Amino acid sequence: MRVAVMSAPGEVRVEDRPEPTILKPTDAIIRLSATCICGSDLWPYRGVEALNGPRPMGHEYAGVVEEVGSAVTTVKPGQFVVGSFFASDNTCEICRAGYHSSCIHRESAAPGGAQAERMRVPLADGTLVATPDLPDDDLVPHLLATSDVLGTGWFAAVAADAGPGKTVAVVGDGAVGLLGVLAAKELGAERIIAMSRHEPRQRLAREFGATDIVTERGAEGVAVIKDLTGGLGAHSVIEAVGTQEAMMQAINATRPGGHMGFVGVTHDVALNGMELFYSHVHVHGGPAPVRRFLPDLINRVWQRRIQPGKVFDLELSLDEAAEGYQAMDQRRAIKVLLRP
Amino acid sequence: MRVAVMSAPGEVRVEDRPEPTILKPTDAIIRLSATCICGSDLWPYRGVEALNGPRPMGHEYAGVVEEVGSAVTTVKPGQFVVGSFFASDNTCEICRAGYHSSCIHRESAAPGGAQAERMRVPLADGTLVATPDLPDDDLVPHLLATSDVLGTGWFAAVAADAGPGKTVAVVGDGAVGLLGVLAAKELGAERIIAMSRHEPRQRLAREFGATDIVTERGAEGVAVIKDLTGGLGAHSVIEAVGTQEAMMQAINATRPGGHMGFVGVTHDVALNGMELFYSHVHVHGGPAPVRRFLPDLINRVWQRRIQPGKVFDLELSLDEAAEGYQAMDQRRAIKVLLRP
Repeated sequence: MRVAVMSAPGEVRVEDRPEPTILKPTDAIIRLSATCICGSDLWPYRGVEALNGPRPMGHEYAGVVEEVGSAVTTVKPGQFVVGSFFASDNTCEICRAGYHSSCIHRESAAPGGAQAERMRVPLADGTLVATPDLPDDDLVPHLLATSDVLGTGWFAAVAADAGPGKTVAVVGDGAVGLLGVLAAKELGAERIIAMSRHEPRQRLAREFGATDIVTERGAEGVAVIKDLTGGLGAHSVIEAVGTQEAMMQAINATRPGGHMGFVGVTHDVALNGMELFYSHVHVHGGPAPVRRFLPDLINRVWQRRIQPGKVFDLELSLDEAAEGYQAMDQRRAIKVLLRP
Repeated sequence: MRVAVMSAPGEVRVEDRPEPTILKPTDAIIRLSATCICGSDLWPYRGVEALNGPRPMGHEYAGVVEEVGSAVTTVKPGQFVVGSFFASDNTCEICRAGYHSSCIHRESAAPGGAQAERMRVPLADGTLVATPDLPDDDLVPHLLATSDVLGTGWFAAVAADAGPGKTVAVVGDGAVGLLGVLAAKELGAERIIAMSRHEPRQRLAREFGATDIVTERGAEGVAVIKDLTGGLGAHSVIEAVGTQEAMMQAINATRPGGHMGFVGVTHDVALNGMELFYSHVHVHGGPAPVRRFLPDLINRVWQRRIQPGKVFDLELSLDEAAEGYQAMDQRRAIKVLLRP
């Protein structure tokens, strides 16, 4: 079968690899209806994160179950399923507390890559969520988005305590940040400030529910957020970048007692203790426990209440994956959907 | 009047200074019934924090109102009052959200020092809380403790989300850590693990509600906490030291999805972004908004439900302040009460 493999920074090729097979009785094999490229795939693409040999890429997936191991009971062949990037048992104490991405049995959900025709998903019962029926074609991108990018934006909004009466600011206008805007809106936030200087992204942010756009960054951006919030800062700030500047921008834009939810993978970030101490900000984040939110998010898509798949502004065939990586690296595309 | 002044690291003298007077209509003058030395007073004493000239010391206080400014309406001369180390208006949006120590009008509550016979307290209406009546003598140390050290331990326990069904670990066996134990107990925690290697402090921790004592520190201490919690870590961890080692010990001892409340003033601390990201821990802390908790804490003392003043294991006259600093610096005393 075909799978996208990164052999070196900037080098992605679609190769033939053996078909995945059931290795454990808890595995499932799914045929992908759609997959996509993640902002985090750009870290190794840009050489910021080391590759230890050729890596099958991708961890976002939605598709049809083809085969399940003998121990799998909650999904069956023929069902359309979505899962998260971490496989989880959904039964341990950490999962029950809602932190599936720290499940005591967690492992990669896509060990052979998800930018592929087929994939093996471990811990299928705990990881996969089936849709009520086979979806209409137009729903597939939205369902795919729940697998990571919406689930991650949603977790950030929850970690930032977004809700009724709250002013929420979003640092980062990538797909996760934009879906953080959508999540804040769905969670009932009163005012949503998107920080973006890119017109197409600003437009999508507004469509998702942003009430204000701030184009300034860093200390200037913080000053504008304070101006917009009576000098206090936002109640809730979502950080969806993962750099030192973005983290400090997010903390400093949050009012004392407010919440900052961070989901950008924090490369080379060090938070100064004194700044954190005097900020009085609640800080929470990490790899999103998407599985916690999946049933709810799938339902919102199924009811056609939300269209998170609008972040996919470029659709290519799997064989064109290299072009997809280039488009995202050069910020020509917000997020690229790949059709196997 | 007499006030303790630190002129250089290690040098504290009790000097005569002019009596405090009402400077603003919102001020009150109080005559101190008792005051004390704080762990944070040791930072400049040890030369870790710079002194800009001689500093009148102390910020913990309980005493009788002698005079109020013309705008003060909630306290009056003759009342016994307790206040926090930050004066706050108790009316701004930040105070209403419970973050009085980040009040938009905050200022030092003891600009002329509180290790003194008398002191001027700004923003008296927002800062001071009166007891129902003049207290019996034996209650005074417990009421004094609410002013900072109990209020700070309490905030740490709240920030760490201590409560029923929770296992709480406490890093730091100073007075704040010990009162974090008491707070966790009062908040209903099921199991409370105190980290201490000092026998008298272990004894007090047990008296305040600790169910387990861990003597190991750093990575070893974390390993023991994990052993005690099924490999997961505590739900709630209180950090009451303020060093890099203590902060990382606290974060690493917290389970994914758990809460770490930090109140040790974070000197030379830098939190690694990746470690924080993958910890999945909620991090919150800072200067405790003691005013939020004061009415409740005073009531618990008044009802003789709690005895937080047990942390005072050395009582001296104000004139003996220098000996009090030495005793705390050398860890001969947990916390020193001074009688003006």
